Amino acid sequence: MLHAIIMAGGSGTRFWPRSRRDRPKQLLSLAGEATMLQQTVARIEPLVPRDRIVIITGADQAEATRAQLPDLPAGNVIAEPAPRDTAPCVGLAAGIVASEDPDGTMIVMPADHVIEPAEAFRATVLAAVAVIEGDPTALVTFGIAPTRPETGYGYIERGALLETRDGIPVNRVVQFREKPDRATAERFLAAGNFAWNSGIFVWRARTILQALRTHRPRLAEGLEPIIRAIGTPEEAETLARLFPRLERVPIDKAVMEHAPNVRVLQVPYVWNDVGDWRALALLLERDAAGNAIQGAVIARDTTGSILISDDGGLVAALGVDDLVVVHSGKVTLVARKDQLDKLKALVEGLGVAGYESYL
Amino acid sequence: MLHAIIMAGGSGTRFWPRSRRDRPKQLLSLAGEATMLQQTVARIEPLVPRDRIVIITGADQAEATRAQLPDLPAGNVIAEPAPRDTAPCVGLAAGIVASEDPDGTMIVMPADHVIEPAEAFRATVLAAVAVIEGDPTALVTFGIAPTRPETGYGYIERGALLETRDGIPVNRVVQFREKPDRATAERFLAAGNFAWNSGIFVWRARTILQALRTHRPRLAEGLEPIIRAIGTPEEAETLARLFPRLERVPIDKAVMEHAPNVRVLQVPYVWNDVGDWRALALLLERDAAGNAIQGAVIARDTTGSILISDDGGLVAALGVDDLVVVHSGKVTLVARKDQLDKLKALVEGLGVAGYESYL
Repeated sequence: MLHAIIMAGGSGTRFWPRSRRDRPKQLLSLAGEATMLQQTVARIEPLVPRDRIVIITGADQAEATRAQLPDLPAGNVIAEPAPRDTAPCVGLAAGIVASEDPDGTMIVMPADHVIEPAEAFRATVLAAVAVIEGDPTALVTFGIAPTRPETGYGYIERGALLETRDGIPVNRVVQFREKPDRATAERFLAAGNFAWNSGIFVWRARTILQALRTHRPRLAEGLEPIIRAIGTPEEAETLARLFPRLERVPIDKAVMEHAPNVRVLQVPYVWNDVGDWRALALLLERDAAGNAIQGAVIARDTTGSILISDDGGLVAALGVDDLVVVHSGKVTLVARKDQLDKLKALVEGLGVAGYESYL
Repeated sequence: MLHAIIMAGGSGTRFWPRSRRDRPKQLLSLAGEATMLQQTVARIEPLVPRDRIVIITGADQAEATRAQLPDLPAGNVIAEPAPRDTAPCVGLAAGIVASEDPDGTMIVMPADHVIEPAEAFRATVLAAVAVIEGDPTALVTFGIAPTRPETGYGYIERGALLETRDGIPVNRVVQFREKPDRATAERFLAAGNFAWNSGIFVWRARTILQALRTHRPRLAEGLEPIIRAIGTPEEAETLARLFPRLERVPIDKAVMEHAPNVRVLQVPYVWNDVGDWRALALLLERDAAGNAIQGAVIARDTTGSILISDDGGLVAALGVDDLVVVHSGKVTLVARKDQLDKLKALVEGLGVAGYESYL
């Protein structure tokens, strides 16, 4: 049986001021009417019934997450008491799946990516499941063909082509590479055998638990009492007490970089991780001057800008270029597009400046 | 007796979005707690009792104007049914003064300038009154010593020094000059005998009426039935019917450029016409990076900008330079400082764009 684990954490800084601590990116409608999380659930639901879809989110966001998914059993939304990156999250989820379904296969995926068309995504998931049926010890990851020398993503170096499933190439993985510098990213792009690591994985729950025991034994050991408590009256107390003590480490670093039997599928869909306002702008319509616009906006002698008005008020731009202007929730952000990398630092400084209420 | 005429018109575009059609600049608190209009009244009140202070404003703004000056007789706020520039306004006011007080002297002044200190202003007014007592046919204007080659103001060329009153030089006027180009403005600044025309005048009501009859006879004639109707039951109807037919012309052009006996006082006070957001910024405190800030604002890697938050929300600037960002009344304006001259055009385009409600 296939189980879906949706990782729905996130600190709510990249889309500030629309995103906030209790309303992070995956709970927002960025592209389309449904929220990113709702779209993620809808995308996998034709393959996985709701009772086998588990959302792992932060304690601050659990209530809002449940409210967005009223048809999901409430117990399927699990709140991490503290963010520990993806390895503890994946291990916890694998433990839950394995305890219910010892031979279960699981897909792990972020809640906040745009993937089109959904059919091509599901075809890729089915191809991954078939790969695992052929070799239950395989760890499968979804690689995106890079279109630019992006320095913000991890990369996967593809090795030998093992097979093609439903037109989808399945390659061995030579290595995982962390975010590269610009020159390295350009080399990866030119080489042609590197893929972006999109953070979607498919594997048997048992296989990833064994891999954690092999490559991160202390983390695996720390997870055991927590997994045993899930679904019992001690769940909340045990999570609160033990989860924050787990090592904070991504699954890529904890397992994928070390495991011998990793395979990468080259996905046939269009992918956008909507990592910040610039990435969102690629999904919005543009005016003749290249401005991406949402809401009530007027622009005069303005080019290359992202202009967003959320609250029914008006945003008016005059003679500006390459800005991000977002009015949302009583906050106006005005930033140069090429300075957005500092947005997190700005948001983290709000508390010091006495503006905690806008976090 | 001295009468004060305060010209309180204005279309409400220069300080948009804080200013609106029914809330133009003079009705705003730009610098300090009192509004510009209230400050203007307070500045002249020690010399002119309230019943001799007349405000001339637009029909759209009459109600808000009366509300800001509850201690003024309601009849002292006169609403022009249509804007006709300053000459018809001055002529109307002079007619009102002359009908009550045939030998009356009047000061005419805009409602929306910052003048500091008020004592120096009143000393200048008393000096002007003394000049007119010496020569009741004189038209007196207040000139500001220029500090930059400003192309946005009219200039007055000073001639021979006639006298000094209370330390204030009184000169003959050689000529009035309209807004110069940059090279001419630089020449005026270098020459040393040019003053900015601040739009404040002192004269006998009878003298300016005679000057209008001499230099703009049709306008003077058109004013007569309107002046006769002021204070009668026919005031409103007569104003509405006849005022809009008057020639639209500034008093400078209608009279001052032609009159033989004009004198200019070099004022001893600091003056700022607060002509737009940039001029206001000169009156605000600056942070270390040269940003002028009002309200709840945070700025990171931002320089030389004007950042204003009116409505209790937060304005956050990140990595931007030389911008004007104003959030006020559900509108956010983001403009490059050197593009503010186009603000009027932007505001006038709101109706076409379907945003009449923000005018």
